[in-house]
Parts: sequence; C-alpha cells; structure tokens
Amino acid sequence: MFNNRNIIISPKASIGKNVRIGDETTIYDNVVIEDNVTLAHHCVIGEPLNAYYSDPAYENPVTFIGAGSLIRSHAIIYAGNKIGESVTTGHRITLREHNKIGHHCIIGTLSDIQGNVIMGNYCKLYSNVHVASLSVLGNFISLYPYVVMTNDPYPPSNDLKGAIISDYTQIGAHSTILSGVKISENCLIGANSVVSKNVPEFSLVMGDPAKLVMDVRKYVVLGKGRLYPWMTRFSRGMPWDGIGYEAWIGDPGRKLD
Amino acid sequence: MFNNRNIIISPKASIGKNVRIGDETTIYDNVVIEDNVTLAHHCVIGEPLNAYYSDPAYENPVTFIGAGSLIRSHAIIYAGNKIGESVTTGHRITLREHNKIGHHCIIGTLSDIQGNVIMGNYCKLYSNVHVASLSVLGNFISLYPYVVMTNDPYPPSNDLKGAIISDYTQIGAHSTILSGVKISENCLIGANSVVSKNVPEFSLVMGDPAKLVMDVRKYVVLGKGRLYPWMTRFSRGMPWDGIGYEAWIGDPGRKLD
Amino acid sequence: MFNNRNIIISPKASIGKNVRIGDETTIYDNVVIEDNVTLAHHCVIGEPLNAYYSDPAYENPVTFIGAGSLIRSHAIIYAGNKIGESVTTGHRITLREHNKIGHHCIIGTLSDIQGNVIMGNYCKLYSNVHVASLSVLGNFISLYPYVVMTNDPYPPSNDLKGAIISDYTQIGAHSTILSGVKISENCLIGANSVVSKNVPEFSLVMGDPAKLVMDVRKYVVLGKGRLYPWMTRFSRGMPWDGIGYEAWIGDPGRKLD
Repeated sequence: MFNNRNIIISPKASIGKNVRIGDETTIYDNVVIEDNVTLAHHCVIGEPLNAYYSDPAYENPVTFIGAGSLIRSHAIIYAGNKIGESVTTGHRITLREHNKIGHHCIIGTLSDIQGNVIMGNYCKLYSNVHVASLSVLGNFISLYPYVVMTNDPYPPSNDLKGAIISDYTQIGAHSTILSGVKISENCLIGANSVVSKNVPEFSLVMGDPAKLVMDVRKYVVLGKGRLYPWMTRFSRGMPWDGIGYEAWIGDPGRKLD
Repeated sequence: MFNNRNIIISPKASIGKNVRIGDETTIYDNVVIEDNVTLAHHCVIGEPLNAYYSDPAYENPVTFIGAGSLIRSHAIIYAGNKIGESVTTGHRITLREHNKIGHHCIIGTLSDIQGNVIMGNYCKLYSNVHVASLSVLGNFISLYPYVVMTNDPYPPSNDLKGAIISDYTQIGAHSTILSGVKISENCLIGANSVVSKNVPEFSLVMGDPAKLVMDVRKYVVLGKGRLYPWMTRFSRGMPWDGIGYEAWIGDPGRKLD
Repeated sequence: MFNNRNIIISPKASIGKNVRIGDETTIYDNVVIEDNVTLAHHCVIGEPLNAYYSDPAYENPVTFIGAGSLIRSHAIIYAGNKIGESVTTGHRITLREHNKIGHHCIIGTLSDIQGNVIMGNYCKLYSNVHVASLSVLGNFISLYPYVVMTNDPYPPSNDLKGAIISDYTQIGAHSTILSGVKISENCLIGANSVVSKNVPEFSLVMGDPAKLVMDVRKYVVLGKGRLYPWMTRFSRGMPWDGIGYEAWIGDPGRKLD
C-alpha cells in the first residue's frame, strides 16, 4: 500500500513527521498533514472547490488533517476542511468544503458530509451517512447507517437551515432528520424515524413522523435493565475508557480532545 | 487536476474544443465529448457493456456528453448514455447504459442511474439517489438524498415497469417510489414516503403508504404563506432566472434547453 | 480495459488460468484468484486489515475469488474473504474482512458487506445494500436497493448480534432489519419496512414496525393470481432454469453450487 507509486503532492502542501501516504494518492495545494497521519491509497486531499474550474486566479483554501488520523482509501476531502486529531475514516468518504470535524471522530464508508458542517469530538458516523450542509453535531453522537440529515425546509428553497444534534444522542439506521430540527442531549431515535420537530433531552422517539415513546431513562431491555444514558455501560473508544464515565465526568480537569 | 497524467483516450473517441480532461481519466471507444466539457479526474467514460466481457466482436455503443457539462471525479458512465448540455454531476456517480439525460440536469454524488432511464431537462438528483431502469422523469424535478425509484412490481419478476415522475414534482429524502406508479405534475412527496399508487397533480402526499394530505396549493408555512407550486419563488439555475416564471411560461418562444 | 496498465500483483498471490485483470487493479499478498475470473479495472483485492497499519509482522489472511467470478470496477475486497464460484458484482462494492459468500451470488453497485457475514448461494443484493457484520443469509435471497441489516440491539453496545434471513425470502427496497431478528423461509418484506421481530415462514409483512399482512401464499395480484412463493414463476439465473423448480427441487441429486 505504501510503495510510493504515483503519489502526487503539491509543493505547496505541508507534510508532518511520520506520515504515510498510500499509492495513487493526490495532495493538492495548501494541505497541511500533521504528524503521524496515515492516508491510505487512492485518496484525494484538498480537492479544489468549484471556482477552480473557472477562475484562473483560484487559490486553494487551507485543509488540515489532524495528528494521528487514519484516512482509508478512496477518500475525497475538499479543500477547506479542518479535521481534528485521531480521526478515522472508512473508504470512499466524500467531505465537501469547509467542514470542521472534531477529534476522535469516525466517519464510515461512503459517508458524505456536504460542507459547512460543524461536528464535535468522538462522533461516530457509520456507513453511508449523509450530512447536509449547515448541520451541527455535538460530541459523542452516533449516526447509524443511512441516516440522512437534510437542510431545506420547503424544497426547493434558498432558506437552508441545518439540523442540530446534541451530545450523547444516538440516531438509528435509515432515519431522516428534517431541516432546522434540534435534537437535545441523550436522546435515542429509533431506526427509520423521520424527525420533524424538536426533541427534548432524554427522549426515546420513533416513527414517521417521530413521536415520543418514553423517557429513555425508563426504557428497559429484558434481562439488561435500564440502558440509557449509555455512557456508564459503553466506553470503547471514549475518553472515559478505563476510568468509567462517572469518574471522567466528575473530573473538573477532563478533556474532550 | 489537469496535468495530463495517465489519461487514456481511445483513438475512436471524439473530443470537442476546449475540453479539459482530469488525471487518470479513461475514455473508451465511440465516446463523443462535445465542446467546453470538463471531465474531472479518475472518470471512466464509455464503460463497456456486459457483452464486452464475452464477445470478441463487441463494438462499444456511442456515448455523448453534451457541451458545457461538468463531470466531477470518479464517475463511471457506461457506453450508450446520451447526456445533454450543461449537465453537472457530483462525485462517484454510476450511469448504466442507454440513459437519455436532458440538458441542465444535476446528478449528485453517489447517484446510480440503472440504465434505459429517460430524464428531461433541469432535473436535480441530490446525493445517493437510485433510479431503477425504465424510470421516466419529466422536467424540473428534484429527487432529494436517498430517494429510490424501483421497477419490479412483485419481485423477483421479469415484468419490470418503471415509475413516472412528472414536471415540477419534488420527492423528499429517503422516499421509495414503487414500480409503475405515476406521480403527476407539481406534487410534493414528504420525506420517507412510500408511493404505491398514482398521485394526481398538485398533491402533497406523505407516509408509508403515502396518502394525500392536501392540495399542495393550500399548504401554508407559518410566516411564509403558500409556497407551492414553487416556481414563482425559486429560480436559481432555472431558465426563468432573472425574468420570473410567469414571464417565462407566458413566452410562446420559451425554450427548455 | 485489459491493457495491463499499472496492474500490481503481489508475488505472494496466486492467479489461475484464463484470468483477466483490468487496468489499475491491485492484488495484495495471499490472494487466490481461481480460473476464469475477470477482475475489472481499479479493483483492490486483498485489502490489508487494520493490523497492517500498526504491526510490522502483519501477514495478510488468505482471500479467495472463486472460479468464473466477475468483479466489476472499483471493488474493495478485504483480505480474508472467501467468495464462491460464478459470483458477479456491480461497481464500487466494499467487502470488509472474513465474509463467506456462496456461489452464484450477485452483489450490486455500492453494496457494503461489513465483515464476518455468511451468505449462501444464489443471493442477490441490489445496489447500495448494507449488511452489518455477523449477519447470516441463506440461499436464493434478494435484498433490494438500500436495504440495511443492523447488528446492535441497543446502540452503542458490545452485544452485537446479526440478523438471519432464510431461503427464498425477498426484502423490499429501503427496509431495515434489526439486530438479532430471524426472518424465516419464503417471506416477502414490503419496501421501507422495519423488521423488529422474528417473522415466520410464508409471511407477507410491511410497515414500521413491520406487521403481518397475510400468508404470502394467499397474496393475489390482479390479473396475475398468486405469485408467492416465486420459484415456480421465476428462474432467470437460478439452478432450475430450463427444468422448472418442481423438477429441480424434486431431484434428490440437485446441487446448490
């Protein structure tokens, strides 16, 4: 994978220490790759924006890939993205321009982030998640496969408005989040839901249109008891791994990055 | 992007004036690229059909890319497609053989058009739209992300029948359009709908199965009033941009291309 | 397509007789390509697993591609897959590690099989199907476009459990199959269903959550009569093609491969 075959790196790119670059990968102008990053094969980093096709004076915006990140093969990452540290991706992701993606996020195979999206830390997008431009995600959020976030309240329009998803919320596979909706902290959204209204914290909602089923803290799984909020029972890849969520959240010096 | 690296162009292809071809792009036999087309990097234009694998006398059908079109990177466009003028695509589109796509259409990232599809002018497919073979689309139609059009009425069968979508209709994200359905002009289909029956013009329909909610002309958005039909309030990229829909539609000499 | 341009084949790979390998395709260590296989252009076969990135002593697991298979362009097939004979794929499929895929399967464009999946013979996945790890499929199953099989019963958790789909069952487009569910033989699942409970054989189920509509053997299509089970009326690509299902199933010497 790392044989230096047909790699193209702009002389205007900056490559950190201990960076591995896969065969056939292209790095455009003004890309900054921090230390210990792995870019697998066939990636395109710093893909030029639309103006490139028409403006002879086009200058590529700066693109950052944070230290320790692993970008799997066939990614297309537009110029203007700022990607945090220790981010991992699947294959064939598409990141349009000017997203700001936090640390320790995972972005699954075929996911498509449409630009001007803000995403916190420790978010996990599974395969084939679609995030419309202007969407805002907090921290510790999972979007399961084929979740679609939209941004047009009455299509087609110019009044685009992203949806907001807050910390710790989990969105089930195949769900659609409509433009402008705010889903608060610690919610669980069932698979295939259509979320058309704001959702208060600790809600379990399901259906099309999504309706409140119960306070998720009262949701009991047979033989397992109460499972939400999930942070005290799941820690893989989380900053509280090894110490427990209670200890971590109770530590005034805790860090998110 | 345009460095002439590893471009392969069949001697049987025809390339117009002022055509830009991205690195690593392959153009097969009998492709006709009209003037002022941009093919970005890593595209495959005129991908051979199945018979290529087994028939030594295989001849690639003609593929047209209309003047002024922009095909973004990693497209796979089969032989036999006829693509109109000023068509724009996202990344990684797949167009199977023998589609006829009108002028000024936009085909989003990861969209997959399965062959023998007819699409009019000014259609917009967002990301990851799936159009089954034999589907028919009119003009000024939007299919939002993850819309799936199907063509088998009782799968698996050999009685494939495409669905028909008529002018100006908008289909919300994650909707499924079942085989053989006709959706008439000026409809709005809510997100995640399953359209299983014909839909008369000016319908707002939603749900699974999709049901008529109201005449879309009576649909009021708070603070915005009546928003459908949408043509008098939205003109970006439309042929009535700058003159207004009323003036355009009232002009007996108006053109769709 | 087969011009021997930029093909990379590991010296540790084994290539059978009459194998065609497309331009820009890469074959990694310990891949076994059986006779009469066609790998189209831009494929990656035997993609290294995660440990490759960190373990200097990493050894790629064996990957098999069965005789007569056709892998269309831009496939990413991880190391550790065992793919049967006469399998056909669309474009841009992603097969994570250690799937076992039977003979005569078809895996559509953009489909994503997440690893440790077991699939029988004559299965057909249409475009953009997502199969979570640990899923189990029998024989003669179709998953139509955008079907998602999941594996986490209360996300996020470490109690992953795949779903099971049994012989002859057909799953409509955009359906979601929840973790741990078993769908028995000869079912028909309507488009956009969410299957959250076990489904007994011969069920027609639909909706979110999916509910039993009727015994599928009683389902009548106007002018067509009873259409399920489907095997007596559809044989294309099936082992009973030419002899009929009744003769085939009644033959004690019948083969599935």
